[in-house]
Order: sequence, then C-alpha cells, then structure tokens
Amino acid sequence: MDRRRKPNPAERRRDLCDAAITLLADDGAKGLSHLKVDRRAGVPDGTTSFYFRTRSALLHAVAERLAEVDLEELQSVADSSGDAGDGTAPSKLSQVVIQAGSEPRLRRTKARYELTMQAARDPALAAILQQATDVFTKLHREILVQLMPRGAELDPAVVEDLSNVTLTFINGLLMRFVQGDRVIDTPEQLDATLSAIAAGILTNPNRGRLTGDRGRRSDAAPR
Amino acid sequence: MDRRRKPNPAERRRDLCDAAITLLADDGAKGLSHLKVDRRAGVPDGTTSFYFRTRSALLHAVAERLAEVDLEELQSVADSSGDAGDGTAPSKLSQVVIQAGSEPRLRRTKARYELTMQAARDPALAAILQQATDVFTKLHREILVQLMPRGAELDPAVVEDLSNVTLTFINGLLMRFVQGDRVIDTPEQLDATLSAIAAGILTNPNRGRLTGDRGRRSDAAPR
Repeated sequence: MDRRRKPNPAERRRDLCDAAITLLADDGAKGLSHLKVDRRAGVPDGTTSFYFRTRSALLHAVAERLAEVDLEELQSVADSSGDAGDGTAPSKLSQVVIQAGSEPRLRRTKARYELTMQAARDPALAAILQQATDVFTKLHREILVQLMPRGAELDPAVVEDLSNVTLTFINGLLMRFVQGDRVIDTPEQLDATLSAIAAGILTNPNRGRLTGDRGRRSDAAPR
Repeated sequence: MDRRRKPNPAERRRDLCDAAITLLADDGAKGLSHLKVDRRAGVPDGTTSFYFRTRSALLHAVAERLAEVDLEELQSVADSSGDAGDGTAPSKLSQVVIQAGSEPRLRRTKARYELTMQAARDPALAAILQQATDVFTKLHREILVQLMPRGAELDPAVVEDLSNVTLTFINGLLMRFVQGDRVIDTPEQLDATLSAIAAGILTNPNRGRLTGDRGRRSDAAPR
C-alpha cells in the first residue's frame, strides 16, 4: 500500500515482521526472503534489507515480534484468570491454547515452530525464543496454580514438575494443530485433560519428577 | 565414494534418502537441494535428480525412508516388550523415545519435524507421514497396554484416549529434544511420567476424553 506520510520506523519494522510471520506460516522457512517480505508487506523492493541487513537479523526480529504479541496476549490472560476455576467456564489458559490452533492465531503458531526448527542452528535465535519460553513458563505456572484446587499450598517443586509436564503436553498439542490434527477441539476438553494429567502427577508425587533435585527420586516409594 | 560395482537402484535410493535426512537435520528444509544431496552422498552431480525428478518426489521418498527405519525400530520394540513391566527395567517404549533425543537417532527426529512442517503445505507428504503415524499409534497402544497394570482389561476407548494423551506428550517431548531441551533424561524418568499421566487419565475416566463418542462427556460425573 502507498503511504503518503513518512513511515514511522518502529511501525515499519513491525509491519515487516508481521509480513514475515505470514510468509513463514504460508511457505515455511524456505519461502522466506527479504524480497518476498517486501512484496508481502507492499513496500518498495529493498526496504526489508534496509531494516534487517541479514537473514539472521530478520529472523531475530521476527522472533522478538512473536514474543511481543504472544506475551501481550498471555499477560492479559494472566491478569484476568481469576474468573476461571469456578467450574462453569473453561480456563483462559485453555482458551488461548485452543485459539492458537485456529486461524488467524494459527499462523503465529506455525511461524513459531518454523523459527524453532531454525533455532537449532542459530544459538542467538534460540536465546530469543528461550526468553519468551521462560516468561510463558512463569505465567503458565501462575495460571496453573490458580486452576488447581488448593494450588496455592502446592510445593513449588511440584508446581515446577507439573508445569513441565503440562507445557510439554501443550507443546505436542500445538504441533498436532500445526499438522491439522485437532485431537482436542474445545477449551473444556483441554481443561479436562490437563486436570487429569495434573491429578495423576499430584497423586503420584514420586512420579513425574522432571527437574530440580533429581536425587529425590532415589528414595521414591515403590508403588 | 567411488563404487566399482554397478549400484543397485534400491540401495542407491536408500543412500540418497539417508544423505537427505542428514542434510535436513543439519541445515533444515532450506538447506536441502538435489545437488547438496549428491555432494553429501558422494555421488555424481545429477544422480539425485535422476532418481527423484522433483523436490516433492525427494521429500516423499525421504518420508517413506524415515517411516521404514522408524517402523523397523518400533516393531523390534513391540516384539520384545514382554520383558518390560516387571518394575526393574525401563520400558522399551521409553528407551526408544529417549534414544530419539540423542545422536545418532536425533537427526531422524529433526528430519521428521522438518518434513512435518513441509507437510502442512504438501497434502501427499502429509499422507505419507500420517501412514507412519497411524502405525506408530497402533504399536504405541499395544506397548502401552502391556505396560499398564491389567492393561488387557481396559476399555478400548480408554486405551485410545490414554494413547492420544501420551502420544501428544511424547510429541511435545521430542520437539523439546529437537530444541536441545532435555527436560527428561532417562527412560526411567519417562516411564514414571507416563505412568503418572496414565494414572490420572485412568482414575478420572470422564476427563481426558479426546476421541470417539464425544457425547459421552455430557454425562460426566462431577469430581
């Protein structure tokens, strides 16, 4: 589109990153180039190269943009999740995850996995994605504790194990969504599944220990 | 390498696919080309193009090769899993999954996820991957039933739900392995986690219903 006013550089960067996210989702990492981002964003050829000199710089900026948008969304969930857990409405957490499996949100999910695959070969990109993952993990734990009966009384190590298991499950679920496999359709189903998983971990305290002091497992009681 | 004997076409195809798997793992889908496969496999330029005319044909053959190798591995696990479940050795299932997170097996895991991302844009590729997933799912269920106490008595619908949840968890776990995040290190830890998840699903029979007659959920008892 032809903008008469001089574009704000921050807005321009954001628009280019959003175009790159759509390209990644539609065509994969192989389909991403500076020129294709120019064309997708409707800006003069060379604009993306001006803002992001290298492919790596572009991918890093896209990762930061994804993190920014995801965290805005997640923060609004964390701030409002006090209304969940009354048994009538699905948790906001599950609503967000299920939304991430449908367009328009699915394109961000796809773009994130494309970047994740790239990150195995780009430590700086991995570090940006990890920052976002760390914040997601922290917020996920807070929401999880709010969703659990007497969650506030839980041992932090148990919460850590529990959130590691549920985050891994959600990771696999989002990967299935990317593949078009909607094994879980509704936030209610996801809540039920997460509750069942959590109940299993909580009632089997010597099972599902993933992190922290792994030495604890040596004195695990026989089942 | 220079082979004096005339290469067997089936062997040649297999070698090219194996070279492509390594390329996919090391450089991603963007790093895969017919010429790079030639160079990686040590064959004359043009060989890969002779056997696989298009990029799509090459990707499909790689998916079939991955399925072939994975299923050989998994079948040997299924055939030998009678020795698991006695409480002393980790399950063969967990051994296979943990192995999939370490080299040399990790490269196949990475290549599979690269193809999975491509498959979102290639229905024929998706169909090949789905065939392998279906067989994996069937074998996974058989192993899971052997691992569960009184597994043979379980309602098939419960086994289906249970395996959907554990497969989704394993999918997420493998994705974390691809990212270098070894959240679970040992087959024993994975067994403990899968047991805890399974216990949660089994003791909460109205939770975690993912598939089949979803109408059943409408008469779920309150917890």
